[in-house]
Amino acid sequence: LGVISEQQIPWFAEADQARPWLVGVSGGADSLALLHLLLEHGFSKVVVCHLDHGLRGEASVGDAEFVRVVAEKLGVVCELGFADVAERVARGEGSVETVARKARHEFFADCARRHPGAELVLAHHADDQAETVLWNLLRGSHGLRGMRSGHALRVAVGLSLVVHRPLLGLRRGELREFLSSRGHEWREDASNAEPVAIRNRLRNEGLPVLSEISGRDAAQALVRAAADAEGQAALEAWAVAQANALDPQGRVHVRVLRELPRAVQQAVLASFLKSAGIGSPERDLISRVLGLLEPSAAPAVNLPGGGWVRRREARLVIEGRSGSF
Amino acid sequence: LGVISEQQIPWFAEADQARPWLVGVSGGADSLALLHLLLEHGFSKVVVCHLDHGLRGEASVGDAEFVRVVAEKLGVVCELGFADVAERVARGEGSVETVARKARHEFFADCARRHPGAELVLAHHADDQAETVLWNLLRGSHGLRGMRSGHALRVAVGLSLVVHRPLLGLRRGELREFLSSRGHEWREDASNAEPVAIRNRLRNEGLPVLSEISGRDAAQALVRAAADAEGQAALEAWAVAQANALDPQGRVHVRVLRELPRAVQQAVLASFLKSAGIGSPERDLISRVLGLLEPSAAPAVNLPGGGWVRRREARLVIEGRSGSF
Repeated sequence: LGVISEQQIPWFAEADQARPWLVGVSGGADSLALLHLLLEHGFSKVVVCHLDHGLRGEASVGDAEFVRVVAEKLGVVCELGFADVAERVARGEGSVETVARKARHEFFADCARRHPGAELVLAHHADDQAETVLWNLLRGSHGLRGMRSGHALRVAVGLSLVVHRPLLGLRRGELREFLSSRGHEWREDASNAEPVAIRNRLRNEGLPVLSEISGRDAAQALVRAAADAEGQAALEAWAVAQANALDPQGRVHVRVLRELPRAVQQAVLASFLKSAGIGSPERDLISRVLGLLEPSAAPAVNLPGGGWVRRREARLVIEGRSGSF
Repeated sequence: LGVISEQQIPWFAEADQARPWLVGVSGGADSLALLHLLLEHGFSKVVVCHLDHGLRGEASVGDAEFVRVVAEKLGVVCELGFADVAERVARGEGSVETVARKARHEFFADCARRHPGAELVLAHHADDQAETVLWNLLRGSHGLRGMRSGHALRVAVGLSLVVHRPLLGLRRGELREFLSSRGHEWREDASNAEPVAIRNRLRNEGLPVLSEISGRDAAQALVRAAADAEGQAALEAWAVAQANALDPQGRVHVRVLRELPRAVQQAVLASFLKSAGIGSPERDLISRVLGLLEPSAAPAVNLPGGGWVRRREARLVIEGRSGSF
């Protein structure tokens, strides 16, 4: 791989080259590097997928055209999509960030229907991961959580797509060096229209200041810490299973819960609430549900998004929650 | 308490007012607030402990004199110490940070011997905690770890002192407001000679930039995340006990270890290595010890600070380690 060693992308040793792969290609350096790396590694059914979010006028059109030409030269199938994100935001569909995400999901869902059996590959790298970890940390209640790889993403009702991020172990600079070493071109400002304002500032101001103050590579420290935290999530899942406080219907055994140390109780309740569709239950909510164990407790705790947790004799149960979860 | 509510310092409801308490007082706002809060709450055997690190010339002398006068006015016992940190650094005892910490431990050990049964109270608050969490995060391999409270600190061979930090739930500004509301004075630049350069820059540049970019209170986010992570440590300890992979001699059952998921194996080995005096075992070291389970593995893994882990039939054992651990 020239400047990139095989050990940096263990995914290449596991992935099925003969499968159709949808590759998200903005036209920027990261996604171009991903595309060329896949082709060098003999991935034969690559589908270049580019969504024009219509947010940068002429530049957006230029990105799409650039991606189309690159795909044509490489002899690779190309799916181009267009979404008028600004117009949908004006219609009240949500923030730019939300609408852009919805539009991407719709686009990838279309691509997935046109290429059955395909999975999705995205070009996020270690510096993206560091920004994500820092942003999640600052937003609170997420701890040290980064982007995952190899998980299912629901892109439409009844349609999930497995998402891979093989470049999470590589730095931004390494991908550019790889492209330069091969003489490949990219569009410097091409953006995948993710929430760029905060992300760009974390990249250009936040992380450099932290690196400069600490005399360490802040991005690397954050990525490593997030990887360690991922181990913690696996440990937590095992501990919840060991605790054996959830019955086959997913209800909580009050008597079993009571005997557990507080940290394990919290983990059991977090798992219980997640099963009701509450993605990252807040600490406060978990504490209030834990309060249901007290004899003097209120009879129920309301849940965000509707419904409540109630104590019914020896069980905690979730009630009044919409069936869509 | 005026501007500070009782709920912000739950420690006051638990602590024994009649015990002798060593209070670290630099002369700055934080420690003065702690001292006055203790006295308002009827702590009757307060001992003001001030160590002059000799690092700021006339200003250091002024701090010590200020603290002596405050204690005298308040009718409180005062222990003043002096350490020539710069001279000890020049003699090669270590960095300023290391020597200052050693000097503080020696001083608190002296104070503890003169006031038997005393415990130590320090004035670290939520903003200090945020800086510590961020610094630990950037240094790597510590995750989201902050300062603790209520734990034993070994200040000399055979002498441990319980350290309390009752103000960790309060912000720097709240402590100053409290002092102002009471008309109490403090020395603006008094420093406890902790490693101030990085800490000051994290406080004055790092955290403000992160707050400004994210539009959130970065300090609060870090403190909360660290509190959540503390729960993780308790969960991990429970999981290690449940795993039952350590025998009464503290050796690892290879057969039991083998059946555990990777994250639990790592937690068991971290606990195993900690028992040998390796404070925060690096991820790499744990991976190498885990490698001893492979039939083709090298027979032993060297430990930092001497000794090694060896597989002896069905156990992992630590050998060749100095007895001082």
